[in-house]
Amino acid sequence: MRVRVQVMLKEGVLDPQGEAVRHALGALGFEGVAGVRQGKLIEIDLAATDRAAAEVEVRAMCDRLLANTVIETYRIELVE
Amino acid sequence: MRVRVQVMLKEGVLDPQGEAVRHALGALGFEGVAGVRQGKLIEIDLAATDRAAAEVEVRAMCDRLLANTVIETYRIELVE
Repeated sequence: MRVRVQVMLKEGVLDPQGEAVRHALGALGFEGVAGVRQGKLIEIDLAATDRAAAEVEVRAMCDRLLANTVIETYRIELVE
Repeated sequence: MRVRVQVMLKEGVLDPQGEAVRHALGALGFEGVAGVRQGKLIEIDLAATDRAAAEVEVRAMCDRLLANTVIETYRIELVE
């Protein structure tokens, strides 16, 4: 089973990487870009086939390793 | 309009960052992790309100800046 985890900085947390992308887009001539936030996308292939169990396990992975929940939020999506 | 761009390394391209996460998950006791790939997640707030025009513009941003299409693929998702 493949699980996709999206990790983003929380609203209000400064995101210099996103700001850099926003500036670069402006320099390339793209107008009307009000804001850019950059996060991480992690795809995990699990041996587990039970969807509920997989979600519980991935949530534990996020809390313990993949996301810093002080400043980041995460979203889990079961792909297949 | 908010657009979410998912940038991942193509299949077959080595992903040392994903490998490092896989090892770390194993060290933490998570078993049954067959593979991990790590990519980028970019959220863009656009002034444009036309969905088709926004998608065309973001596709251009990906080709010119956000993704290295030699080794990466991207997926565009219009959020709102």
